[in-house]
Amino acid sequence: MVGRPRSQEADTAILAAALDLLIEVGAEQTSIEQVARRAGVTRATVYRRYADKTTLLVRALEWSNRDNDPSFTGWRDVDHMLGDWAAHLAVPRNRRLLRRVYAARDDYPELPMTYRSVNSGRRAAMVRETLVHARDLGHLPAELDLDVVQELLTGAVLNHLGSHPDDEGFAMIKAYLIAIMKQMGYRPAVTMV
Amino acid sequence: MVGRPRSQEADTAILAAALDLLIEVGAEQTSIEQVARRAGVTRATVYRRYADKTTLLVRALEWSNRDNDPSFTGWRDVDHMLGDWAAHLAVPRNRRLLRRVYAARDDYPELPMTYRSVNSGRRAAMVRETLVHARDLGHLPAELDLDVVQELLTGAVLNHLGSHPDDEGFAMIKAYLIAIMKQMGYRPAVTMV
Repeated sequence: MVGRPRSQEADTAILAAALDLLIEVGAEQTSIEQVARRAGVTRATVYRRYADKTTLLVRALEWSNRDNDPSFTGWRDVDHMLGDWAAHLAVPRNRRLLRRVYAARDDYPELPMTYRSVNSGRRAAMVRETLVHARDLGHLPAELDLDVVQELLTGAVLNHLGSHPDDEGFAMIKAYLIAIMKQMGYRPAVTMV
Repeated sequence: MVGRPRSQEADTAILAAALDLLIEVGAEQTSIEQVARRAGVTRATVYRRYADKTTLLVRALEWSNRDNDPSFTGWRDVDHMLGDWAAHLAVPRNRRLLRRVYAARDDYPELPMTYRSVNSGRRAAMVRETLVHARDLGHLPAELDLDVVQELLTGAVLNHLGSHPDDEGFAMIKAYLIAIMKQMGYRPAVTMV
């Protein structure tokens, strides 16, 4: 009982250290030793919780989604959805994490798999709902294949992460995402200024 | 004079070993020691040519383009261009190299920069020419922003590399690329079966 709070503190310190290292140096260069040192615990403390580095990084990635509001049910429209994405992509730390996860595909495939499973399901359904709604309102062409649109949007984000500077800022990123949607025939009825 | 052929052999062996290691284990895990061992030369032989690992990897990446036909001046149409890309993306080794280069952005930014400079210029101009030609023929909507189309195509490739299996094969990859173009209003006059 007495040990409980301290144990939870160690839990959090370990996950935070693992996530920081994943972002800063990537999965390959992260070691249990470094995580322990940064978290201020012994290696044994880390190993008691996680059998290996991959298990720890997967858990840290799931944990990084802890702030996602479970009561959030979706965006009002495409404009708000892209605004949300742009706000996320305007934070260099978020950009780096996304690149690290993508980069892990060959050596730590569990990381992109985890990212996908965390973000698919409920979240992917909300994206789809937003697109369907826009199509119903006539803001997207009726013949659009929404599966392909979702792949294209993922690709547009990857391209942005790969070839735009990390300090581009919210407004330019949102303009980029809207330009992408417009190439697919996106025509919002009312333009918000 | 007598040393010349042996020296050129060493040159090639070093570049081939560096490229293989970049593909197999990535920039971070590649070391001059490993390159030397795999090339069958001493570390000193490598260091006489390249001051450090990054310089060597950059040169290996440039060298990987050695087979590009300098007399090639462009594609007949969008269909042939996408076919060419699909053929390239159907080779797992090519896919891995592209992912390794993208993944190097945070720690070895020289690699994606080199890749871009090798592929921009003449090659990017050929892509643009193909798209302009398609637009002139009415196969692409007149109002399309071709800068955005080029970013979207890059993104579509990155998305494919990240979330499609490496053994998908030519036909499915080409169908994917064509589906992407169709979302942007691509309507070829004659459908090749």
